[in-house]
Amino acid sequence: MSELRKDPVVGRWVIISSQRGQRPSDWANEPNVKGSGFCPFCPGSEDKTPPEIAALRQITDRSDVPGWQIRVVPNKFPALQVEGELNPKGYGHYDMMNGVGAHEVIIETPNHASDLADLSPDEIAQVMITYRDRIVDLKEDSRFKYILIFKNHGSAAGASLEHSHSQLIATPIIPKRVLEELEGSKRFFNNKERCIYCDIIKHEIKARDRLVAQNDSFVAIEPFAPRFPYETWVLPVQHFSNFEHLPEAEFLTLATIMKDILNRINHVLGYPPFNFVLHTAPIQNKALPDYHWHFEIIPKLAKIAGFEWGSGFYINPTTPELAAEQLRKFQASVA
Amino acid sequence: MSELRKDPVVGRWVIISSQRGQRPSDWANEPNVKGSGFCPFCPGSEDKTPPEIAALRQITDRSDVPGWQIRVVPNKFPALQVEGELNPKGYGHYDMMNGVGAHEVIIETPNHASDLADLSPDEIAQVMITYRDRIVDLKEDSRFKYILIFKNHGSAAGASLEHSHSQLIATPIIPKRVLEELEGSKRFFNNKERCIYCDIIKHEIKARDRLVAQNDSFVAIEPFAPRFPYETWVLPVQHFSNFEHLPEAEFLTLATIMKDILNRINHVLGYPPFNFVLHTAPIQNKALPDYHWHFEIIPKLAKIAGFEWGSGFYINPTTPELAAEQLRKFQASVA
Repeated sequence: MSELRKDPVVGRWVIISSQRGQRPSDWANEPNVKGSGFCPFCPGSEDKTPPEIAALRQITDRSDVPGWQIRVVPNKFPALQVEGELNPKGYGHYDMMNGVGAHEVIIETPNHASDLADLSPDEIAQVMITYRDRIVDLKEDSRFKYILIFKNHGSAAGASLEHSHSQLIATPIIPKRVLEELEGSKRFFNNKERCIYCDIIKHEIKARDRLVAQNDSFVAIEPFAPRFPYETWVLPVQHFSNFEHLPEAEFLTLATIMKDILNRINHVLGYPPFNFVLHTAPIQNKALPDYHWHFEIIPKLAKIAGFEWGSGFYINPTTPELAAEQLRKFQASVA
Repeated sequence: MSELRKDPVVGRWVIISSQRGQRPSDWANEPNVKGSGFCPFCPGSEDKTPPEIAALRQITDRSDVPGWQIRVVPNKFPALQVEGELNPKGYGHYDMMNGVGAHEVIIETPNHASDLADLSPDEIAQVMITYRDRIVDLKEDSRFKYILIFKNHGSAAGASLEHSHSQLIATPIIPKRVLEELEGSKRFFNNKERCIYCDIIKHEIKARDRLVAQNDSFVAIEPFAPRFPYETWVLPVQHFSNFEHLPEAEFLTLATIMKDILNRINHVLGYPPFNFVLHTAPIQNKALPDYHWHFEIIPKLAKIAGFEWGSGFYINPTTPELAAEQLRKFQASVA
């Protein structure tokens, strides 16, 4: 018998239909073999991107030259423009505003062949610290309400360049999905005086059947009502509403679990395309007692029906308990 | 400059970023060339599906034999099972219930080579009447709250069989997207005593820049804040909250505009995979003054970033005004 399960934060019901019988092997992908053609994100092509906003490099008195480990540049084809005023206005009886915002690219490594999961925990920690630094910098711009950080890996997941990178979009509005999480977790807090995510973490550590991995400061779980097979959340065990409030010392612990999870997904699902999205509190807020930042990692598996994206109605052919068991089994080697 | 636009019903902001410069030709697909292998939906294979629930056929005293024009069968791999009780229960601190519901397949034509758009308006009208009849029948089952009717066309849109078919899922819960529409339109109605969709239709017929087609009883528009390029809505001009309340005589008019729109999409976008979803009021309600049924048609275009589906945040590279202009230009021949 399949099941209907309700996400406790946003209240979305999903169908978990494990009879449909998909197994990890149904989704086997091939490791990304990267091409050797021209790449604007490789060292030596710094002039092919807009001038860098920030970079991690040994010699810091020059920019836009090789020698960097991480490089942050404006997106050459930005979805939002950094200059201008919002100018909210009506349009007939509709609401709109100018597409003002920031759209940046975080080039995670100079090495074209490396995926994020191939980097060392130290290098991944530097990528995460770069996210943090960009948030702290962009927070100063009062036009922005939210900073969305995400990674598209593989062309089926929306990456148009194969060189490993993440993206940042600072927006003058709060994305609907984030608003729903904020509202849902606030409702729970008003009722119980506890953070719903803290409750979920405690429950999952105790129940263990959806727990994938844990270390000193983080857990990785399959959520109770996942929209997608092998959807995985990584959360700090300690309560933090804002990603940028994470203590400096914890970034290596975060990087270690992120590498572990990406390795597990790669080995169990055959190097699938994936997206991850950082869910963090809006930037104009102080620390919130009722929200809890986390990463949501969504492997993009072939043959998943498309209609869910139009209807908001999800059918997931893999129980999170089975997904967690498969991911737990693989003892990822973390360098 | 790109724009941020707000959907007036559900309040979702989307980025319309036309500078990214995608044009219809960037998405050219090939007409579906259908294989000649075994197909369980073809005449002669009636015993390869579960026994039929309903069919449109000349000789009506036998079932599960050739001679039908439309055939409704249970999905062989159902997401929900029709037998059993809901048995809502807690699971730790989570909510769940048994996956009770109906999952049916509407085989739209006996002809394996025909797509829905290839059928005559009369034949498409019969498909739509079949949807209506299934809704009317399933309404009697008090376990169900919603009937979701949708079509996945092409494997990239989630179709696992190429023989033209739609699907129906009757569920004991109301999908979140529908709830959001119901809440948004109710809020508007409480404020203004008018149906927001009726307002949108009037506005779009007058403004014309997002109008794609119209006939005596229906309009097809690009919505003001579309999530996807060439997302197209088909709505009855007259107010109806429930699809099944449409007068019998209007089904041919509906079929005519659906065929017209699918033809326009095929010609402008090169026969893309697509989904359509019928948005109608929950079945347990009487007619609502504040909700308005409609179809949402979403071409599944290659190279659209995937992360939106995880974040609820949409970047649409094509303005609805450009999409409407392109779709208007093509004068579809409607047989």
